[in-house]
Amino acid sequence: MSFEYLTNIPLEQAKKDYLALLRENGFGPQTETVAVQHAYGRVTSRAVYANINAPHYAASAMDGIALHARDSFGATETTPVTLREDQYVVVDTGDPVPEGCDAVIMVEELVKNDDGSVTIHAAAAPWQHIRQIGEDICAGEMILPGYTEITPAAIGAMIAGGVTELEVIRRPVVAIIPTGDEIIPPCADPKPGEILEFNSSIFSAMLSDWGAVPKTYPIVPDRFDEIRAVLRQAADECDMVILNAGSSAGRDDYSTASIRDVGQVLYHGIAIKPGKPAILGCRGPKPILGVPGYPVSGIIVIEELLRPLIELWLGRESESRSRTRAILTRPVVSGLKYQEYVRVRMGYVGDRLTASPLPRGSGVVSSFMKADGIVEVPQGTEGFQSGEEVRVRLLNAKKKLKNTLVVIGSHDPLLDELSDLIHTTNHSMYVSSAHVGSMGGIMAIRRGEAHAAGIHLLDTETGIYNRSYIRKYFPHGGVYLVRCVGRQQGLMLQKGNPLGIQGFSDIAREGVRYVNRQKGSGTRILMDYLCGKHGIRPEQIYGYEREEMTHNSVAVQIASGSADAGMGIYSTARLYDLDFIPVCVEEYDLLIPETAWSSPMVRQLIETLKSPAFAARITAMGGYTLDQPGEIIDLV
Amino acid sequence: MSFEYLTNIPLEQAKKDYLALLRENGFGPQTETVAVQHAYGRVTSRAVYANINAPHYAASAMDGIALHARDSFGATETTPVTLREDQYVVVDTGDPVPEGCDAVIMVEELVKNDDGSVTIHAAAAPWQHIRQIGEDICAGEMILPGYTEITPAAIGAMIAGGVTELEVIRRPVVAIIPTGDEIIPPCADPKPGEILEFNSSIFSAMLSDWGAVPKTYPIVPDRFDEIRAVLRQAADECDMVILNAGSSAGRDDYSTASIRDVGQVLYHGIAIKPGKPAILGCRGPKPILGVPGYPVSGIIVIEELLRPLIELWLGRESESRSRTRAILTRPVVSGLKYQEYVRVRMGYVGDRLTASPLPRGSGVVSSFMKADGIVEVPQGTEGFQSGEEVRVRLLNAKKKLKNTLVVIGSHDPLLDELSDLIHTTNHSMYVSSAHVGSMGGIMAIRRGEAHAAGIHLLDTETGIYNRSYIRKYFPHGGVYLVRCVGRQQGLMLQKGNPLGIQGFSDIAREGVRYVNRQKGSGTRILMDYLCGKHGIRPEQIYGYEREEMTHNSVAVQIASGSADAGMGIYSTARLYDLDFIPVCVEEYDLLIPETAWSSPMVRQLIETLKSPAFAARITAMGGYTLDQPGEIIDLV
Repeated sequence: MSFEYLTNIPLEQAKKDYLALLRENGFGPQTETVAVQHAYGRVTSRAVYANINAPHYAASAMDGIALHARDSFGATETTPVTLREDQYVVVDTGDPVPEGCDAVIMVEELVKNDDGSVTIHAAAAPWQHIRQIGEDICAGEMILPGYTEITPAAIGAMIAGGVTELEVIRRPVVAIIPTGDEIIPPCADPKPGEILEFNSSIFSAMLSDWGAVPKTYPIVPDRFDEIRAVLRQAADECDMVILNAGSSAGRDDYSTASIRDVGQVLYHGIAIKPGKPAILGCRGPKPILGVPGYPVSGIIVIEELLRPLIELWLGRESESRSRTRAILTRPVVSGLKYQEYVRVRMGYVGDRLTASPLPRGSGVVSSFMKADGIVEVPQGTEGFQSGEEVRVRLLNAKKKLKNTLVVIGSHDPLLDELSDLIHTTNHSMYVSSAHVGSMGGIMAIRRGEAHAAGIHLLDTETGIYNRSYIRKYFPHGGVYLVRCVGRQQGLMLQKGNPLGIQGFSDIAREGVRYVNRQKGSGTRILMDYLCGKHGIRPEQIYGYEREEMTHNSVAVQIASGSADAGMGIYSTARLYDLDFIPVCVEEYDLLIPETAWSSPMVRQLIETLKSPAFAARITAMGGYTLDQPGEIIDLV
Repeated sequence: MSFEYLTNIPLEQAKKDYLALLRENGFGPQTETVAVQHAYGRVTSRAVYANINAPHYAASAMDGIALHARDSFGATETTPVTLREDQYVVVDTGDPVPEGCDAVIMVEELVKNDDGSVTIHAAAAPWQHIRQIGEDICAGEMILPGYTEITPAAIGAMIAGGVTELEVIRRPVVAIIPTGDEIIPPCADPKPGEILEFNSSIFSAMLSDWGAVPKTYPIVPDRFDEIRAVLRQAADECDMVILNAGSSAGRDDYSTASIRDVGQVLYHGIAIKPGKPAILGCRGPKPILGVPGYPVSGIIVIEELLRPLIELWLGRESESRSRTRAILTRPVVSGLKYQEYVRVRMGYVGDRLTASPLPRGSGVVSSFMKADGIVEVPQGTEGFQSGEEVRVRLLNAKKKLKNTLVVIGSHDPLLDELSDLIHTTNHSMYVSSAHVGSMGGIMAIRRGEAHAAGIHLLDTETGIYNRSYIRKYFPHGGVYLVRCVGRQQGLMLQKGNPLGIQGFSDIAREGVRYVNRQKGSGTRILMDYLCGKHGIRPEQIYGYEREEMTHNSVAVQIASGSADAGMGIYSTARLYDLDFIPVCVEEYDLLIPETAWSSPMVRQLIETLKSPAFAARITAMGGYTLDQPGEIIDLV
């Protein structure tokens, strides 16, 4: 186990020094010549001038006859003029104006005579209905300045100006080298210890989006000589290199050594989180970036360090993501040592834009997928408080956020089905759901952060669900409780029930490993209620402290063998092919603030709840009962 | 000459009926399966669920040792615990947690002993530093709903979830069939009567941008049987068809007949301008759109009629271009009969956003390239007045408009060079210039529409340029006059001077065809001054009424042989290889409002005027003198 010193350079300093070093080494764009038809979206490397006039000949702008204007002089309604056959030429739109002619009369204004002559009732002005040479573009004129992105119309203008090819900025080719003994290509059945290689696919998509050309190399095992050889090859073949993984200070770290071997290392370690083990290296003018293996770290490192280089190369204006201000729904605590990037889910409820921090684990790629924005906590700052207004870098358009139904509360897989049904029916409407338990849902509604919350809270004194909680937490009203489903709760057990668990009280038996739900979830409240009822104390249950956030993740621990039992719903047990002991049927309802009631998103939600499509999906999942979903429940 | 009746259906009606017909015929998206690595930017056709958990095994989240947590209980700073070699397993980040272990201690917190044991000074909590199975994604969970555009992070999440391929909406293939006897492929030397085919390149770029796959067929001559054969083939091979040109009611119109032959025609003629001769046809569920040959008409027709179909197919939210309000700088007159699309150039001068109508000819592709927005004049409206606030559909981002230096006034090719220098130096700064003559420039500055105006106005009483005009039109000041160049004005003549023109007065000679500049231009004022000085009356000059808007377009008429002489500057005469008789050197200065003086755009302009790069370009063009460009001229 060897350790290497990591620097902790502030991001801006690192970027500045890196760029200065690369520039000193000759970093910069290169050009190539492309056919004008293939130039869409490319960037001119220098001004483009027209080679010819457009139109390049004097052309008739109408269907009709060309003539010498002088021959028509004097023609009026009362004194028509007749032109002999040799005094005019029939022309169509676009035809060259014949020699000796300087005007066109439209076919609609002619009377054709049997002898081939035509009669006109108005004089033609010289050059009327003629497109002059160069009316659109004059030869020698600048069509586009340098460093200009080529639009569809610009392609038309260039072709019209006789430009057949032009010089554009070559797209930089960026090598992506995945490394690691444990890394394998994407598949559906990895073995324990094997890690699916998806970073290169994520990076490729990002690079394409930024205008670069990604080139992914085969996975390289953790061997210094092999990494070095591929790195050398990639630095020869490409303009920039991403060396992925192996940039933390673990025992298999050959990245720094191999970059140093083929070029130089400026910094190893920058003051950002996630992303701190990044390596800023180069070979001459070619940047070589050592990128951490965790996907979120990698995404942030290439976004912060590689994207500006690509934009500089392409001469593109740095596309600073648009920013907005939003209210934090939970505190964000950050170390003083790093600039931290916190992904947030955002929601517009009424006019209030909120930002809710997502899980910060750098391995959690799904949280990046769900993120609507990023809050940057500057180095030297301890974070932000709940309710504080913060600046957010937007990952999604505000318009999308405004059309998103925000559901925060208890987890149920039916929420995903609702989301799919709503978005499939109305492509411009989105659903964002966060699983924070029933009590979390009530709090989210109280704070004005959600349009709806799924709740299933048992009043242990009355045995009635939800109503008493609403009276307690919303004493002045202001919310609707909407019927959703009845659902079967119970004990999920390993397939075949190898431990022979017969009922709830068996979870306290010796040798039974339980997996619990988090505090504040309806299922936890039910669990604690049942414990009390059966006279079971928490310390009697092995695993009582082991908390998972969703039915699914409880089921997964049981299915994978690290736990024997957990409370959950039937549909989840069925999805994971687990045994199931029914305990009770509970009311899973939706809590909706009155202020959001008439919003289009809530309207769509209610409509979907009432739809046969929803009933069909719910029925197929199993373990649910439907009794007038979408109807308002009387709270008194 | 045959005529066919054209309908004049309002656009919205036409769109509605067209869509209804297509839907009735079965129009709709189709799906295909793609590998997840190639799914970036595609749209899911149905929800995607995870096949496996991510992580799919319990993994160490740190480099260190795995152990049974129980073995560490009791360890503190003062009561360390030593673990025998058989009580722990060395693990790296990502390694599976070995059988029997349920916690990881980081390598930094270990003391290694010589006998292979390790000593720890803190107890491990069960499951610490272990990534639980499914922490990121649980098998069976919905990763993406249907009809969702796939982001880079979504690709990562799908691969992590064991998804290797997925069903997406197939991109519709759109045939583009260019027709016309006079149409030829792009080249640099078309002959008179030949028209360069650029519509298919413009349309291809637009279609790609909208997510469709363009397929361009070879140019088809104006023959019914050939058009019909290609149309039939395209309708078989593709999902949608654009039949370009031949959709006006001219004598070569086989479009309607051939569409009718392979399918049906719903409407021929819609109430928009440009674009009215559009044909809305189909073959079963496949739209066949007859698109006018003029590029601007074609662009508008496919934007209004085909784009919504593509968006519908792709399940994309209709990307209505963002709109804004702007002040019209000139009136827009429109017929009652059509909905008219007027391209406008836009400018932010101070906080005022202005929209200036561009030439409306539907053949002028350069005007589409220069357009920043489109003003729609609804059917039944006569247009808008100058100074009226109108809604504009933006073609460029507001941010770009805010960074654009607006130059309106006298034409000089040096403005293009300035534009190139400014944008090449500072990629985020743009220059937009409109040529409306010196007096037009003064008026634009007075109305607050421009940051700068090029002017060269001779005071015929004093022989001094510009100053007296400024005193007259800006009696209360508020503007700076900035030195730009001295430039050589003169008579541009055909190469070799075949008519033997010796001096200015020869333009009134019998047989000399003159081409003039527009009223209000500095060159026209100079011309009229010289006529007075030489005692020449306008009616003595053949072509006095023939007006062009730029030096270049005057030169083009002479170079192409339709005129013999015109006034212009030396650099233009040289560009077009014309003979030149010097007449005078004039001051071409820039007028800049005080309010814009400190804006970054004007600062960059002044800096560029003073730069050696500008001097080098100007010198290379010839005919200019430089005397402290960028300095303010004393007006008193």
